[in-house]
Amino acid sequence: MNIVQETIELHSSKRCQMTNITAHIADVVKRSGVENGDCIVFCKHSSGAITITECADPQVLHDVLMTLDELVPHERSAYMHKEHDSDAHVKCCLVGCSEQLLIQGGKLVLGTWQGVYFCEFNGPRMRQYVVHVRG
Amino acid sequence: MNIVQETIELHSSKRCQMTNITAHIADVVKRSGVENGDCIVFCKHSSGAITITECADPQVLHDVLMTLDELVPHERSAYMHKEHDSDAHVKCCLVGCSEQLLIQGGKLVLGTWQGVYFCEFNGPRMRQYVVHVRG
Amino acid sequence: MNIVQETIELHSSKRCQMTNITAHIADVVKRSGVENGDCIVFCKHSSGAITITECADPQVLHDVLMTLDELVPHERSAYMHKEHDSDAHVKCCLVGCSEQLLIQGGKLVLGTWQGVYFCEFNGPRMRQYVVHVRG
Repeated sequence: MNIVQETIELHSSKRCQMTNITAHIADVVKRSGVENGDCIVFCKHSSGAITITECADPQVLHDVLMTLDELVPHERSAYMHKEHDSDAHVKCCLVGCSEQLLIQGGKLVLGTWQGVYFCEFNGPRMRQYVVHVRG
Repeated sequence: MNIVQETIELHSSKRCQMTNITAHIADVVKRSGVENGDCIVFCKHSSGAITITECADPQVLHDVLMTLDELVPHERSAYMHKEHDSDAHVKCCLVGCSEQLLIQGGKLVLGTWQGVYFCEFNGPRMRQYVVHVRG
Repeated sequence: MNIVQETIELHSSKRCQMTNITAHIADVVKRSGVENGDCIVFCKHSSGAITITECADPQVLHDVLMTLDELVPHERSAYMHKEHDSDAHVKCCLVGCSEQLLIQGGKLVLGTWQGVYFCEFNGPRMRQYVVHVRG
């Protein structure tokens, strides 16, 4: 089994933001030379997450972030953790800090409208995610 | 390492629906001949998801779908994406488009009450999910 | 490929509770001898989950559990499943019953503030989760 692992940096520019990282992952997969296998994308932060969503209309990202903000408000007196990022931690538990992707013929197996996104929930800041390819 | 990958079609009949796909996954695992390993189930759509929940009482599925509908309403003027499926995309970010399963002695490792479900959030339509077995 | 699988028991003491299991997982990884690979942590219950969140301030766990309780109330007449655990099943669909972790140099790849947690949503009771190491 061949394993290739790369850590990629990402600079977010807003408190809450979703960034399409599909091309970066596909690039690691291509350079790995793996033809059939899979790939884990892992976010090394407790206030950032990885998700897969519609990649055609950027307004979808607005709707996802808006809904998450409504479900999990930023500032609440009921939060006992006083770092102003409890909402970010809750959102990460809901969205999840990793995704697993499949590789066929050297390419990611994704539906026509699927893209992989890094979710920033407490930016702006510098982030790291790991792309782990196996095959 | 042995890798077996199959794409399975599923026809949903309602807008929101959960379908037990455990037997279909177990069948792929059996035919793969993998004794010890794992299995990824991946949904190739941004308005469908994969989850694991209680498989004994179908009313659980009602309660899961009802709660998701309440948390993420179908039609809202605040949605900026105008395809009437923003709710489906948000639900997919919350539930996730894949699950990972373990295989021991040629069988899926699941608790007594666990079943694997395809979640339709914008049906009815034809869907595809991939079962990727490794061992 | 080397595969090591261990089932670990955990006794929860409250209805809803998050328990840091990172050290137990790291111990299985160490004993497996795997230097580079990955690890699946899988909960064998439909009312328990696995998540990764901030491990420095225990108040974060309060805020996560409180928010989940508010989003998915315990007792509701609208629930059709009459076992008083529909909320637990919904929370599991949101949080997810497994996590995937990466291994580098024999150690788990985690950010400074990340810990792996078993989420009890219908305790107290005895629980089992499986740690599956590959490399």
